[in-house]
Amino acid sequence: MEYKFSDNINSLKPSAIREILKTSGNAIPLSAGNPATEAFPEDYIIEITADILKNNAVTALQYSITEGYQPLKDEITYLAKNRYGIDNEGDGIIITSGAQQVMNLSAKAFCNSGDTVICESPSFIGSLNSFRSYGLKLRGVPMKPDGMDIDELEKALKESENVRFIYTIPNFQNPTGYTTSLEKRHKIYELAQKYDVLIIEDDPYGELRFAGEFIPPIKSFDTDGRVVYSGSMSKIISPGLRVGFAIANEEIIQKFAVCKQCDDVHTAVLPQMIAYELISKYDFENHIQSLKKIYKRRATLMTDLADKYLKDYVEYHKPDGGLFLWCTLPDHIDIKDFVKKALDNGVAVVPGFAFAVSEDEPCHSIRLNYSTPSEEQIKTAMKVLGDLIRKECK
Amino acid sequence: MEYKFSDNINSLKPSAIREILKTSGNAIPLSAGNPATEAFPEDYIIEITADILKNNAVTALQYSITEGYQPLKDEITYLAKNRYGIDNEGDGIIITSGAQQVMNLSAKAFCNSGDTVICESPSFIGSLNSFRSYGLKLRGVPMKPDGMDIDELEKALKESENVRFIYTIPNFQNPTGYTTSLEKRHKIYELAQKYDVLIIEDDPYGELRFAGEFIPPIKSFDTDGRVVYSGSMSKIISPGLRVGFAIANEEIIQKFAVCKQCDDVHTAVLPQMIAYELISKYDFENHIQSLKKIYKRRATLMTDLADKYLKDYVEYHKPDGGLFLWCTLPDHIDIKDFVKKALDNGVAVVPGFAFAVSEDEPCHSIRLNYSTPSEEQIKTAMKVLGDLIRKECK
Repeated sequence: MEYKFSDNINSLKPSAIREILKTSGNAIPLSAGNPATEAFPEDYIIEITADILKNNAVTALQYSITEGYQPLKDEITYLAKNRYGIDNEGDGIIITSGAQQVMNLSAKAFCNSGDTVICESPSFIGSLNSFRSYGLKLRGVPMKPDGMDIDELEKALKESENVRFIYTIPNFQNPTGYTTSLEKRHKIYELAQKYDVLIIEDDPYGELRFAGEFIPPIKSFDTDGRVVYSGSMSKIISPGLRVGFAIANEEIIQKFAVCKQCDDVHTAVLPQMIAYELISKYDFENHIQSLKKIYKRRATLMTDLADKYLKDYVEYHKPDGGLFLWCTLPDHIDIKDFVKKALDNGVAVVPGFAFAVSEDEPCHSIRLNYSTPSEEQIKTAMKVLGDLIRKECK
Repeated sequence: MEYKFSDNINSLKPSAIREILKTSGNAIPLSAGNPATEAFPEDYIIEITADILKNNAVTALQYSITEGYQPLKDEITYLAKNRYGIDNEGDGIIITSGAQQVMNLSAKAFCNSGDTVICESPSFIGSLNSFRSYGLKLRGVPMKPDGMDIDELEKALKESENVRFIYTIPNFQNPTGYTTSLEKRHKIYELAQKYDVLIIEDDPYGELRFAGEFIPPIKSFDTDGRVVYSGSMSKIISPGLRVGFAIANEEIIQKFAVCKQCDDVHTAVLPQMIAYELISKYDFENHIQSLKKIYKRRATLMTDLADKYLKDYVEYHKPDGGLFLWCTLPDHIDIKDFVKKALDNGVAVVPGFAFAVSEDEPCHSIRLNYSTPSEEQIKTAMKVLGDLIRKECK
């Protein structure tokens, strides 16, 4: 038979990153966003998983409640208070199937088809596509090294109809690696108040700060219950477990639970229990420190090599944490063609337009990831990219 | 701030079953749909999980592909061919976060807001709510002990606008326990062809047949690629793992993958690997036989006691498998009041109207589950229900 798909889904394209990953074969993967394999606390996971199943198999295997495994909820609530200063009266928490599900639940719970979401431009494609899958209009606000252009944000809020929320990744944003300053965090919150919209604060990378000072999340000064704070175990424990969470006003959490009931009933229990044991009983602080060490080393290596090979032709801003370096090439270089040439030379990178809010935006950037490749691979790849760019600029 | 939720979600009520479970405390749980705890292959899961993490931790912990863990996909494809006769050219498979996600993906991929889904009436509330969460209209077709009323199904197809699919649970339906006959399965397929609509065939209980003969799924004679077959590990291995799957034409599977990418990226990997090891290396057939033995024993106990205590006042049809017995009480009994009285007497049951397609349908039934309570609990509960009904009929 001939299939007719929904209007929302028909217009959605598969992730450009996925397509690149599919064809990149043995190329050096500067294209992924995977945590470093050696960062997984494997031995400890083996030990605690055996304990969980030995002592508590029925809990791990039986149906559970939609809001999540209570000890994990309590532990994350405690951490969010003590590490990030998130402690607002009336807030609750729900465990999700990765932070991606928070974006899905936000679109589903808050938005009617045709409503507008204001996003940083560029932004994480997974979130943008999740919003698109509900027929939402995306309005991009240019991203600067210290966060969104605030004048443009106000313009977007003023000009757009039915804005439901502002979507921001304040720490080490994907794809730019940029971090929103405290001043801008306050301004974003004030504008959200002025125009009475919500903020979805997506913070999967916040724990991975290896330079500069901690900046409090917007959620920490959310007196109105206006912010949905989204966190994830993916970058600090393991993405394969698919455990994320949202902290928001209890009224929102209850709506999220109704939506999640329709989507996947609850998040797999064993991964939730593993995450709980890791956070509460493992030396979590020490684990985070060792992660930061790995990422700092790789990021420094990559930016040093950028200084050596790319500096004369390429703009970039050294990240204070996270997984990505965003490089803007000279205007005359065709990015699609460049990415293909890089791949032909054994290096996979993601073209910046994959993260564009609207397709017709010009984009001369590429996203480089330093968490997945080894140090040797980073050395080889940066030289290849440097040679290619120099050739294009002759 | 004052929250505004989406139109679709605002009109959605939390599952009535969840609400009952929340207040039922220590009552005997004839209200749940949980597999029997002693049915979990705990020891084997402990063993294989240790092996997986010892030999293959990085695969279990790293990001994976949206379509699922390849060995599990291959194994389920093989089982579906050999056990159910599902082997259509051009079909593919996607692993989902429980079968609930198949309903979510079907609504998302196929339907625009306002489209119609044709459902058995009554039907599984989780699926109905998933469809409602996309703003879909539900048209119910009365359920008989051998499946949908076919004349009413044709009437529904003729009268409804923009019908996208027929939703059916052909084996031991939730909540009725009824099984659709082979003849009716063919008629449903012919009507789907005549009116050019899809069929979502939801089969979580198919392996739990303890009486009567195997009936081939509609998918097994799907020459048009018109059927999405949904299966689940929840009732045969463990619901806490949240592993389900859909088998459908590859074009549909690819759209499901695009949607799932937006929803939760991929299903947690460790649960997929556990499911794979269990199905492929454990004595799966023996495990299924032992499950059937447990459920047959409990079902027989419950229906024998129904014959003893309820027969004169209550209509029911003995199930050939699955988890549920559907009991229709005399018209004069107010079901809401009866369910409350049962709870006051220590027995939790679900009122039939929780499964109604439209709220104004009259419903005089209750759903009894025999997989969760122990045999002793079933004995006590059935006597309590019998006493209550007799009192109401005096």
